[in-house]
Amino acid sequence: MILRKVVIEKIEGVFRRYGFDPIDTPSIELFEVLAGKYGEEAENKLMWRFRDPWGDREYALRYDLTVPLARYIAMHRDTPMPFKRYHIAPVWRHEEPQRGRYREFYQCDVDIVGSPYPEADAEIIMVVDTVYKELGIKGVKILVNDRRILRGVFEEELRIEEPLRVYRAIDKLDKIGVDGVRRELGALGMGEEAINKIIDIISLKAPVDQAVRELTARYGSNKHVVEGARHLEEISSIVGSKDLVFDMSLVRGLDYYTGPIFEAIVEGIRIGSIGGGGRYDSLIELFTGIRTPATGFSIGLDRVIEVGLELGVLKRDKKTYTEVYVVMLDRSNEVSSYSLEIIRTLRSAGIPTSWDLLRRAHQKQREHARKLSIPLVLYIGKQEVERKTVTTYHVESGERAEIGRENVVDHVKRLLKR
Amino acid sequence: MILRKVVIEKIEGVFRRYGFDPIDTPSIELFEVLAGKYGEEAENKLMWRFRDPWGDREYALRYDLTVPLARYIAMHRDTPMPFKRYHIAPVWRHEEPQRGRYREFYQCDVDIVGSPYPEADAEIIMVVDTVYKELGIKGVKILVNDRRILRGVFEEELRIEEPLRVYRAIDKLDKIGVDGVRRELGALGMGEEAINKIIDIISLKAPVDQAVRELTARYGSNKHVVEGARHLEEISSIVGSKDLVFDMSLVRGLDYYTGPIFEAIVEGIRIGSIGGGGRYDSLIELFTGIRTPATGFSIGLDRVIEVGLELGVLKRDKKTYTEVYVVMLDRSNEVSSYSLEIIRTLRSAGIPTSWDLLRRAHQKQREHARKLSIPLVLYIGKQEVERKTVTTYHVESGERAEIGRENVVDHVKRLLKR
Repeated sequence: MILRKVVIEKIEGVFRRYGFDPIDTPSIELFEVLAGKYGEEAENKLMWRFRDPWGDREYALRYDLTVPLARYIAMHRDTPMPFKRYHIAPVWRHEEPQRGRYREFYQCDVDIVGSPYPEADAEIIMVVDTVYKELGIKGVKILVNDRRILRGVFEEELRIEEPLRVYRAIDKLDKIGVDGVRRELGALGMGEEAINKIIDIISLKAPVDQAVRELTARYGSNKHVVEGARHLEEISSIVGSKDLVFDMSLVRGLDYYTGPIFEAIVEGIRIGSIGGGGRYDSLIELFTGIRTPATGFSIGLDRVIEVGLELGVLKRDKKTYTEVYVVMLDRSNEVSSYSLEIIRTLRSAGIPTSWDLLRRAHQKQREHARKLSIPLVLYIGKQEVERKTVTTYHVESGERAEIGRENVVDHVKRLLKR
Repeated sequence: MILRKVVIEKIEGVFRRYGFDPIDTPSIELFEVLAGKYGEEAENKLMWRFRDPWGDREYALRYDLTVPLARYIAMHRDTPMPFKRYHIAPVWRHEEPQRGRYREFYQCDVDIVGSPYPEADAEIIMVVDTVYKELGIKGVKILVNDRRILRGVFEEELRIEEPLRVYRAIDKLDKIGVDGVRRELGALGMGEEAINKIIDIISLKAPVDQAVRELTARYGSNKHVVEGARHLEEISSIVGSKDLVFDMSLVRGLDYYTGPIFEAIVEGIRIGSIGGGGRYDSLIELFTGIRTPATGFSIGLDRVIEVGLELGVLKRDKKTYTEVYVVMLDRSNEVSSYSLEIIRTLRSAGIPTSWDLLRRAHQKQREHARKLSIPLVLYIGKQEVERKTVTTYHVESGERAEIGRENVVDHVKRLLKR
């Protein structure tokens, strides 16, 4: 739990440094708010839907943090734009639990509402890139594509104008492999020639600049492709990172994307993506009737932690935030009340301090502090009470000292390097 | 939202200083886990229950954070004891929304599992008392009683041995007044004489020491009263606070309490309690079969914020965490890329920094920073690019300066007093 907390606080720190502010929305939404936003599978298989047990309305637990944000914006029309928000909270999906997939899991979302420009998408990519870097996760690539490019290419090559079902099939590539995607496309009624073409199309993977050149050379007359390619090019020039890779097989499964789409992967780790997002310029309009462009990214907390542990950059070693444990050598009133005074002083000085609540012998108290790997132990007995001192024991260095009580806070801070 | 965040982070800081560590449990529990723990009304009227929409099991959204903690302990038998945990998260109750009451609301819980001693209850009271103090909420009283005292007194005076229904009636005193409680007791089939006696009994309110003396003088032969009174006396002697008040009308509505019970109120504010808790020594046993004493307290976040606003100690003034806004005076490549470099530098130095994502004229950019009350504005134009400088404008002091880019971080930190 402490590891999760440490990671969340790190992510939150980066979000704030990039000028994003927190919001919070309810976990339960009216089903009608979420309906028609994600796609058929999400809505009818993965969403936790239920009727109000004492009423008549239909509810659902939020499926992501994006649609609730859109609903929030619709209800707060006076929000100054662009609105840069982050939201770290659980979402629910009714999947069979498996490695890296849980029914209730935390998403860490950043979004920018109100800007149609590549600057906003670039800002999103820069902030999540910094998050991964500061968590120590090396080898992160941000895959990018654009729904307009996909649409244009599918139009040109296959005359498909409603490609959402095709996207959802392609989106499973990671999980079910090329043959699986072939089967899914076949199930949609596509012939082998079309399927071959799709498999060929989605194999394009290249640095953004190169991909943009190839795409405009080939589909320069299709305005969707040109718009998407130009947008990606501008994002790339602001982000200026070699870790940005164009990947035509990146489609994202959800219906609401309209422009650039992103996904973060770690090279050499087989856990699927550790985050993803994209631009959804039409979603908020569904609620407000007013076109309100938006773009965002969602970092999967549990995935990131698994990857961090696998790479050895995150460790499960911290068992407590507590840094000082006060051992009472006996249970006399004098020792107890003197100890409580010292404990109060340390806590007031901001030092996380604990003590025995089980009336255990001092050896057992020491044992408890050891189990929790608390770095500093303070001993208080009759001698310390009489001399108005405290005996400190710094576990790592083995340093032991008897300190006057007026100097305890300074001494403890020095030992803890605070 | 920022105010909520600030308050949560303050509360969390105090919890950690007192040696409590975070845990997190899922929002959804199997209904059978929550069933039979809270009482009839909670279970059948207030709990969000629903069937698995794709399966057969019955679920519920957690009603509090205490029963999920008990379930957690049952599943993690190797947890070192005492286990001091905090949990700040939403819970759900199906009440009609009204002032100070929401369907989804945050509780901030601290609990100690594994200690039957008054030391643990005292530790709980000390930590929540510090929370209220550090939030600046003055006039907080911690009301205390003990379920054993209640049981003993009801036995002695009225021969009632199953008083849970009576407690739930008394628990509504704040909401429905004395006459309301009379009616509820009448509805339970009690006669007027018994009702009068109960109303008389629950009027005892006194400093803990005095109440203990009175109770032991009158009911000294009842072992429940004596046990409860002695426990409260010991808590009081450790806490040593004048803000601890014995109140016989404090009963707490939930079934699972077994010993001391607590409730925090603010004198002179009519919003009901701002937190409550108590000892529940039998709850974990329901899951494990092994007696595992525990005690805890739950701070109602929304209530605390309302009270803080009403008292004027909390303010809604902060609109963003962002401290620096970079205004680009034109959109040339030189100005943009130089600005992005400065922005990157500031963010790397830990300074929350934002910039325009809407390609607005510089006046509009400045206007946006003003709307969000961002304290420091940096101007970058051709001149700054050429001279390798930045022009800073500190809103509050009106101080304006042109600073070499190598000194920007230091200068900004000085202006922001970091």
